[in-house]
Amino acid sequence: MTKVITYDSTLRDGEQAQGVALSLEDKLNIVRRLDEFGIDIIEGGFPASNPKDIAFFEEMRNNPLKHARIAAFGSTCRKGVPAQDDPGLADLVNSGAPVAAVVGKTWDEQVLRALQATLEENLRMIADSVAFLKEHGMEVVFDAEHFFDGYRANPEYAIECLRAAALAGADSIDLCETNGGALPFEVEAAVASVVEAFSSWDNPPRIGIHCHNDSGCAVANTLAAVRAGATQVQGTINGYGERVGNADLITVIANLELKMGFTCVGAANLRQATGVAAYVAEVCNFAVWKHTPYVGSSAFAHKGGLHASAMARFPGAYEHIDPSLVGNDAHTLVSELAGRASLVAKAASLGFDLSDDPDTVESILQEVKRQEAAGHSYEVADGSLALLVARMLGKYEPYFTLESFRVIVDDREDTGALAKDAQSEATIKVHVGPDRFVATGEGVGPVGALSKALKLALSTAYPQVKDMHLVDFKVRLLDESTGTDAITRVAITTRDENGTWGTVGVSENIIEASWNALVESIEYGLVRQGASRGGEGDGA
Amino acid sequence: MTKVITYDSTLRDGEQAQGVALSLEDKLNIVRRLDEFGIDIIEGGFPASNPKDIAFFEEMRNNPLKHARIAAFGSTCRKGVPAQDDPGLADLVNSGAPVAAVVGKTWDEQVLRALQATLEENLRMIADSVAFLKEHGMEVVFDAEHFFDGYRANPEYAIECLRAAALAGADSIDLCETNGGALPFEVEAAVASVVEAFSSWDNPPRIGIHCHNDSGCAVANTLAAVRAGATQVQGTINGYGERVGNADLITVIANLELKMGFTCVGAANLRQATGVAAYVAEVCNFAVWKHTPYVGSSAFAHKGGLHASAMARFPGAYEHIDPSLVGNDAHTLVSELAGRASLVAKAASLGFDLSDDPDTVESILQEVKRQEAAGHSYEVADGSLALLVARMLGKYEPYFTLESFRVIVDDREDTGALAKDAQSEATIKVHVGPDRFVATGEGVGPVGALSKALKLALSTAYPQVKDMHLVDFKVRLLDESTGTDAITRVAITTRDENGTWGTVGVSENIIEASWNALVESIEYGLVRQGASRGGEGDGA
Repeated sequence: MTKVITYDSTLRDGEQAQGVALSLEDKLNIVRRLDEFGIDIIEGGFPASNPKDIAFFEEMRNNPLKHARIAAFGSTCRKGVPAQDDPGLADLVNSGAPVAAVVGKTWDEQVLRALQATLEENLRMIADSVAFLKEHGMEVVFDAEHFFDGYRANPEYAIECLRAAALAGADSIDLCETNGGALPFEVEAAVASVVEAFSSWDNPPRIGIHCHNDSGCAVANTLAAVRAGATQVQGTINGYGERVGNADLITVIANLELKMGFTCVGAANLRQATGVAAYVAEVCNFAVWKHTPYVGSSAFAHKGGLHASAMARFPGAYEHIDPSLVGNDAHTLVSELAGRASLVAKAASLGFDLSDDPDTVESILQEVKRQEAAGHSYEVADGSLALLVARMLGKYEPYFTLESFRVIVDDREDTGALAKDAQSEATIKVHVGPDRFVATGEGVGPVGALSKALKLALSTAYPQVKDMHLVDFKVRLLDESTGTDAITRVAITTRDENGTWGTVGVSENIIEASWNALVESIEYGLVRQGASRGGEGDGA
Repeated sequence: MTKVITYDSTLRDGEQAQGVALSLEDKLNIVRRLDEFGIDIIEGGFPASNPKDIAFFEEMRNNPLKHARIAAFGSTCRKGVPAQDDPGLADLVNSGAPVAAVVGKTWDEQVLRALQATLEENLRMIADSVAFLKEHGMEVVFDAEHFFDGYRANPEYAIECLRAAALAGADSIDLCETNGGALPFEVEAAVASVVEAFSSWDNPPRIGIHCHNDSGCAVANTLAAVRAGATQVQGTINGYGERVGNADLITVIANLELKMGFTCVGAANLRQATGVAAYVAEVCNFAVWKHTPYVGSSAFAHKGGLHASAMARFPGAYEHIDPSLVGNDAHTLVSELAGRASLVAKAASLGFDLSDDPDTVESILQEVKRQEAAGHSYEVADGSLALLVARMLGKYEPYFTLESFRVIVDDREDTGALAKDAQSEATIKVHVGPDRFVATGEGVGPVGALSKALKLALSTAYPQVKDMHLVDFKVRLLDESTGTDAITRVAITTRDENGTWGTVGVSENIIEASWNALVESIEYGLVRQGASRGGEGDGA
């Protein structure tokens, strides 16, 4: 199979995304994880723009990677300045990185207006810079900024720029779709022309592609370039990047490997994809967007009864690939439309084999339907569903029981509706085995106060509850006709160091619905850790 | 310019997304907004699957749309059942919708294994169903499920199925990329074959395309189909849909109109795109994902120093289109109100003429932006916006002022998390002119208790508050990373005999956010009735 070289720009272009700010430690963590994943070239950033980046390249020199080559990023030399006198190029050489990525202009109008240089001087800058870096023994990637706009405006000049870089020895010519506006058919045609321009060379440079997602086509544009002959793909993990983001490198790799017959990281490493996406997201302090192709938590989720029953007989019909190929799995949703097949599949994914027990399946299904009719929704509440299944199987022993809770919210103001001085206090009483615990929590909001009180009350018996964190909290009123006393559904997502889980609570009282979801979140958090019950063991 | 027909499936396929659950009111709000936007066909759902959908089609019959045609969705008749005896097809006819979308199989293996029918019987089911619907005067869209898998496996049979539908009179043959796994070059080739298959017909059906995003190529696949001759595009707003989602109809439309020379909703309506995306998201209780092409809040945001300075000289270099073409803008919060003209129009619709007062408009706009930065959203909160405008105009005299409120929620139980005996009690103290009122309300939930107490306290001065009913109550946590103490936004819809209005409240405390929205709902309810203030008149 033909190899396509993978080039990750998460640490440079990805860091341009709103909300991404990486420490030195973060960058090192990401680069080591990408190295394990089998990425070929990892762009580390500007080698001398700040102390963090200087320290990063120093660490890379001292502790080289196993597989990947590190690239230092910079620009061609300045107008009127010989390459050997340009401090930016010297920084690239001094970084000690094996690869230099130098960005240069290829759009005539940009050269004349933004750079205010002649077209000839721009060619000199490109050739001189590449030659200088090659003389210093670096592998050189020439990033052709705005190539597709340049090619649209003046194809001869745009390709002349690439030729200048290649003649000076560039190993790779990477065509940048900088403003993200091109569509796949345009990209394919332009890349084909570039490949054609070098087709008579004995040792042509490889052609790379760098796309942004402003038209919603970054992945498709990247694949179109590979079809036209590109053999190096740039992108970022989870598509992090400025504006709408860059091509999502994992989606690109998965498509190339699973759909187009190329090899990038190889089938074995590809199974790390979901883990890599989650890891990088975690370091960037995001969750992976659940609708991300291949690796999102919803990517293989099914809701409709029609599809769920068909899935069991004919998985290929509703799954474009086997999710295990990218390390993901099918989170079958149990919904209003659920059938038996989806419940069996869901129970199996939670560790319960019900395939030979239709009576139990039927009774659980009836209970699920009763609970759904009462307002529960188990679509994203795998924790609550697991507790329900376990209870129905008669295998459930609760970790704690509630005696009572009380919440007080107080607000005093004279200034209308916008004061912000409300305070909440919650007192709860719980039993763990033979022991009774009473605790009070304070907070701005009542749910926060309840959560604090509950964790405090349980922390003696189950110290690990301190590491469970509520990460999402959603409320929905289910029956509009009855207004504020309508059934309220609260869905909570909780995280510990091993992952996230969802629980749901339903009540006519929003505080009690929140409480029910909170209790199940802690309860299921203990179940999934396999914690010993209070009084049975050490509780840890 | 060639017209491409737009077909929205947000209310059917979009509702398959995790977390989307639309009430009747939600569906009606979305359909009217899409009608204004200029969508040609709007799929309303299954016409008889539940009382909500029955009521939806009844409302569509009684109050037709201005531009769009409503489609009722169903399947071809069952195996062995003549179309005229099939209850599902009868439901489509009885829905009163002008368009029927019927899904049928075109993948031989699916017919044999999933449907367990012969290939001939499947052709009979398709032809018979389409003919039956045509006999009843409906426009028929044949949704060819799994067409691209079917075409890959057995192109002759797949096209034979389409031919059966077309011969029976189908107006449109919509090719469904059901499992989302195809890539653009495959889609383009298959659609070209289909177009070719009908090229000799005097009156060929139009060809439509329906894509999912499992390979990250839904938009590109849709565009590839149009290049190959499709003239109808299906999709959902914000790409909502099962698994990874459907083709984002707005991204598709923007690409077709701005990049490919087709017309869909037209340039004037296209400026509503950002507003439509935000509106539909709000109704679904989501935010628009900020990295959404064209309409996301980050879609034209710039961070990098290099680009930001270049932007000033050369905007086209880093913006693929002028953001105003889709109603977005480069640097500020996304809101329908971001432009002055739309704020003037909105204020006028609320009874305030600001057309000759640009300074006031500017200061209101600044205040709207400040409030949005603090978490408010006025997309659906016309009541809160009216109060904000009135306050900014210095014309606002509140109907009442708050001294304090206190809410107590109590729960005692011995049975774990599912007891339902919590009770809430709210005591509030308000002033109306010179009078002070103290009232206590009880309820199951705290917001209901507050609402009762507030109405009771005001009922002497404003008896009409008893006729104001809360009909929808939505809660959103704005900053997920801080858990239960994150900023919470509560949006309330209230109704009296003359209509409905929306208000919004924001606080770190969910009870206080609810309270703020409740207070504004009553306040604006009095404003829109033109009620006399307490002490000024009869208060009725």
